[in-house]
Amino acid sequence: MDNLRIGDKEIRNRLFIGSGKFADEGIIQDLMTETGVEVVTVALRRVDLQNRQQNVLRHIPPEAILMPNTSGARTAEEAVRIARLARASGCGNWIKIEVISDNKYLLPDNNETIKATEVLAAEGFVVLPYMHPDLYAAKALEKAGAAAIMPLGAPIGTNRGLKTKEIVRILIEECSLPIIVDAGIGKPSEAAEAMEMGAAAVLVNTAIATAGDPLIMAKAFSQAVQAGRLAYLAQPGQTVEYARASSPLTGFLQD
Amino acid sequence: MDNLRIGDKEIRNRLFIGSGKFADEGIIQDLMTETGVEVVTVALRRVDLQNRQQNVLRHIPPEAILMPNTSGARTAEEAVRIARLARASGCGNWIKIEVISDNKYLLPDNNETIKATEVLAAEGFVVLPYMHPDLYAAKALEKAGAAAIMPLGAPIGTNRGLKTKEIVRILIEECSLPIIVDAGIGKPSEAAEAMEMGAAAVLVNTAIATAGDPLIMAKAFSQAVQAGRLAYLAQPGQTVEYARASSPLTGFLQD
Amino acid sequence: MDNLRIGDKEIRNRLFIGSGKFADEGIIQDLMTETGVEVVTVALRRVDLQNRQQNVLRHIPPEAILMPNTSGARTAEEAVRIARLARASGCGNWIKIEVISDNKYLLPDNNETIKATEVLAAEGFVVLPYMHPDLYAAKALEKAGAAAIMPLGAPIGTNRGLKTKEIVRILIEECSLPIIVDAGIGKPSEAAEAMEMGAAAVLVNTAIATAGDPLIMAKAFSQAVQAGRLAYLAQPGQTVEYARASSPLTGFLQD
Amino acid sequence: MDNLRIGDKEIRNRLFIGSGKFADEGIIQDLMTETGVEVVTVALRRVDLQNRQQNVLRHIPPEAILMPNTSGARTAEEAVRIARLARASGCGNWIKIEVISDNKYLLPDNNETIKATEVLAAEGFVVLPYMHPDLYAAKALEKAGAAAIMPLGAPIGTNRGLKTKEIVRILIEECSLPIIVDAGIGKPSEAAEAMEMGAAAVLVNTAIATAGDPLIMAKAFSQAVQAGRLAYLAQPGQTVEYARASSPLTGFLQD
Repeated sequence: MDNLRIGDKEIRNRLFIGSGKFADEGIIQDLMTETGVEVVTVALRRVDLQNRQQNVLRHIPPEAILMPNTSGARTAEEAVRIARLARASGCGNWIKIEVISDNKYLLPDNNETIKATEVLAAEGFVVLPYMHPDLYAAKALEKAGAAAIMPLGAPIGTNRGLKTKEIVRILIEECSLPIIVDAGIGKPSEAAEAMEMGAAAVLVNTAIATAGDPLIMAKAFSQAVQAGRLAYLAQPGQTVEYARASSPLTGFLQD
Repeated sequence: MDNLRIGDKEIRNRLFIGSGKFADEGIIQDLMTETGVEVVTVALRRVDLQNRQQNVLRHIPPEAILMPNTSGARTAEEAVRIARLARASGCGNWIKIEVISDNKYLLPDNNETIKATEVLAAEGFVVLPYMHPDLYAAKALEKAGAAAIMPLGAPIGTNRGLKTKEIVRILIEECSLPIIVDAGIGKPSEAAEAMEMGAAAVLVNTAIATAGDPLIMAKAFSQAVQAGRLAYLAQPGQTVEYARASSPLTGFLQD
Repeated sequence: MDNLRIGDKEIRNRLFIGSGKFADEGIIQDLMTETGVEVVTVALRRVDLQNRQQNVLRHIPPEAILMPNTSGARTAEEAVRIARLARASGCGNWIKIEVISDNKYLLPDNNETIKATEVLAAEGFVVLPYMHPDLYAAKALEKAGAAAIMPLGAPIGTNRGLKTKEIVRILIEECSLPIIVDAGIGKPSEAAEAMEMGAAAVLVNTAIATAGDPLIMAKAFSQAVQAGRLAYLAQPGQTVEYARASSPLTGFLQD
Repeated sequence: MDNLRIGDKEIRNRLFIGSGKFADEGIIQDLMTETGVEVVTVALRRVDLQNRQQNVLRHIPPEAILMPNTSGARTAEEAVRIARLARASGCGNWIKIEVISDNKYLLPDNNETIKATEVLAAEGFVVLPYMHPDLYAAKALEKAGAAAIMPLGAPIGTNRGLKTKEIVRILIEECSLPIIVDAGIGKPSEAAEAMEMGAAAVLVNTAIATAGDPLIMAKAFSQAVQAGRLAYLAQPGQTVEYARASSPLTGFLQD
C-alpha cells in the first residue's frame, strides 16, 4: 500500500480538504464519505467550542482525521494559544499552523510559523505548518519538529494554481518531510501536477467549496490526486523535442 | 450516465489508448482490463492481416472498441485504401485517419485528411480524423462526415503536453462534434486539463508506453481523464487576483 | 547590416505596425517617424480610394513601405479583387492577404489564402499572407509564391500573446521564407520572445493602438523587437536545472 | 526623465549587470560603455584588494556605479565583514548583500540577509539585499533600511526565467522600495516582462556572460529592459478572450 504516514496516522487518500466557504456545510459529510477523503482542516474560530452541535464539527464524519487550524492568528503566540485550546477541547493533537498578518493576499508569516511550530512540537502536537515556499524556512520547520511542510501554490482562495512550482519542486527534492501543497490550487489538473512532481498530498478548499457542484468537484480532485500520485510512482517517460514515428513512414501498401 | 457516444457506440471510459511503442505488447490486455479503457487504436501496418495470432490484435481484449488507424499513409488515397483493407479484414468500421508527409514532426496534413474523411464517411465508416488544430479544417471535417475531431496537443510522441490549448479551446467551443485530444499529452495532469476545458476524450500512447511502469501509468491517465471530466461537469469556481479570507482576520481570541 | 529583405525592399526595423483602432489616426505619422517603423498595413476598406486626403493614408509618411491588406475578404476571389484595386489605386505591389469568414475569433482561412497567394504572386505582387500556423499551409504558401509567412500568435485583437509558440517554432525551423508573427501579440516581451525564437519580424496593431500612450508603446515594441533580434543573433546560453556558483562557496574571509 | 533613484544616485539604464562568468573579463568595459549600463556588481572575493591592477575592477569603467557584493558569505556576520572591507578598500558605500548557505540551488537566506541589512544600513551603506521573494521578508528589509529589494526570478545561474512572477508581482504592488529582479533571467524577453510588471530594474549576469556573443547579448538586454519600462509607462491595453474586428466583416466590395 502506498499510504502517507503523518504522525501516528496512515492516510490512504492524499487529498486533504478544508471546511470553509461551503454554501451548505451539510454537504461536507457526504463529500468525505463518498470520496474517501480522510483529512479535513477546520478553523477553530469557526467552531463554537462550547457547543459541538451548533458548529461545523457536527458535519465531520467521526472517523475523519481532524486537522484544526489556527486561522486568525497574527503571531506565533496567538497560534500557540489556539492550538492548545483546540487540543483541550477534544479536537486531537494535530494542528495546522496558519499565522497571517498580510491583510490583502493572506500570505503566511514564515518566521512566526517556525516559532509556533517549535513550541507546539515540543508539546507533543503533530504540527503541519502552512508556509510561503522558501527552502531555509522549510529546513527550519523540519528542525523545529514539523510533521510535514505545507507550502502554498498561490495566494489562498484565488484558484490560481501551482504558481510557485519552481520553488515547491526544490522543497520536494531537498526536504525529508512530506510536502503538502496547500492554497491556490484551483483545478484537479493542478493538483495532479503537484502530485506528479512528488508532493505527498494536496489540500483544497476554495476550489471545491465554490464549484457549481462541490460534491462532484471533490470527486474530481480526489481522482486527480490519485492520478498524479500514480504517475509519480510510474515514472513518466522523457519529453522530447521531435516527434518519433512509432513505425517507419514507408507506406506498408507498397510492401 | 455520462457516456460519450461516437457512431453506434456508448463509451464509458474517455481515455483512448494507442498500442504502439510498448516494449512488451502483452501488457496491453491487462492494461485495458484493469483500467476499463475501451477504445484502442492500432496501426494497420503493424497488423499482419493474414495472421491474427501473430500480430498486436491478439493482445486486444475481444470486447474492446477497435479503432484501426491509417498510420503510414501520405495521401488521402492511401488512407482510403488502408481503411478499406481494415474493414475487409474484419477490423470493423471505425477508422482513425492519419495522413502524414512531414518526416520530422509527423504533423498531420489537414487537406488530405478532409478528403479521406469525405470518401470514407460516404462509405459508412465511423471516421475519426487526427488533425492539426485549425477551425476551418475542423468545420470541413464536420461537413465531410467525421464522427469526432482529433486535434493534436503537441507533435506526436513528444510528451510535450497541451501546447495547442488556445486553438483546441476554440474548437471545443465552436464545433458540434466531440473533440478528442490526440498526440503530445505526456502527463495525466495534461490529460485532465484537456478534459476540464471540455474535450470529450483524450488519446494517449507514448506517455503510457514509455513510462517506467506502463500499467500504473495507464491507471493514472484513466483516473486523470475521469477527474478532468468531472471537474468540467462540476463547473469550476472563479479564479481571482486577490485572496479572500474565509473568515475575517480579527482574532477570535479577543472575542 | 542585419536587414530583412522582402521583395525588393531592405527593411531595417523589424516591427511592422497596423493602422487600425487608433483613437486618433493623426498619431501614426509621428509614431512611425519617431520609432523608425517602416512597414505599415492599411485595410483597403478603410481607405477612400477616391480621396487620399480624407483617408488614413494621409497619416502614413511618404517614405513608408505600404502593405495594404485585404481585410473584409471572405474568399480568395474577394481578396484578389481587393489586391488589384489597391495596386490600381497607387498603393504599390505589396499585399497582405487576409481571408476570414470566422465571425467570432476572426481566424484566417488557410486554403482561401493559399489560392489568393497563388493568383497574386503570379501577377507580380509581393504577397504576405496572414495565416493560421500549420506546417503544410506554410509549405503551400511557399510554393504559391509568398514573400513571407505571417502566422498568428493568438486571435487578432486579443492581446493574448504568443499562444501558438509550439507551432510557430516549427514553421521557423522548417520554412525557408521569413516568418512574421502577426496578431495576438499584446506586450513587448511577447514580441521579443517571438524574435528570440527566430521570427523575422512582428506585426503589432491592437497592443499599440489601445495602449494608454500609443506613441510610447510603439517605442517599447520597436525596442523589444530589436532586443529579441539581437538576442537571437547573440546565441543565448544554456538553461540549466541547477544553479552553479560563479565562484566557490568557500568564504574568502578564511583565506 | 524617467531615472531610477537609489541612494544618492540617479540611474538612467535600468539594466544592472554582474561581472562573473565572463570567459574574457576584458569585454566588460566595452560592454558597459556601448550599452550605457551604469551599475555593475562585483564579488569582493574575486577582487584582490591589494592589487587593483590585477583584478576585475580594472575592467570596470571609472564612471560606473560599483555595487560590490558579499558573495561567499554564509552568515550575516560574514556579509557585514565583507561589506566593511569593501568600503575600506575604496569600493564605495553601495553593497549588494548575498548570504547563501544552500550549496545546490544557491538560494539566499532571508533572515541572515535582513540582519546584515540592518547593521549595514545603520552604518550608512546603501544596502541592496538579494532575497528569496517573500512579502514578510521584503517588509522587514524595508524596515531594516534597505535601499531596494532584489528578489530572484529563478535560482542563480540557471537562465530559467521569471519563475517567481506570482510573488514578485505582489512585492511590486505591496512594497514602497524599488524591486530589482536579480538572478535567473535568461532571455531579454523575460527581462522585459519583469519591467512590464513594474520592476524598477533587472540584474543579469549569466545570460550575458554565457551567450555566444556577450556584447550583443548585453545590448539586447539593455534594449529589452528599456522596452519593458516604456511599456509599463505606456499602460498596456486590455487582454480579451475574443477577437474584435477593427472594422465590420461586411465586405466593402459590395458597398
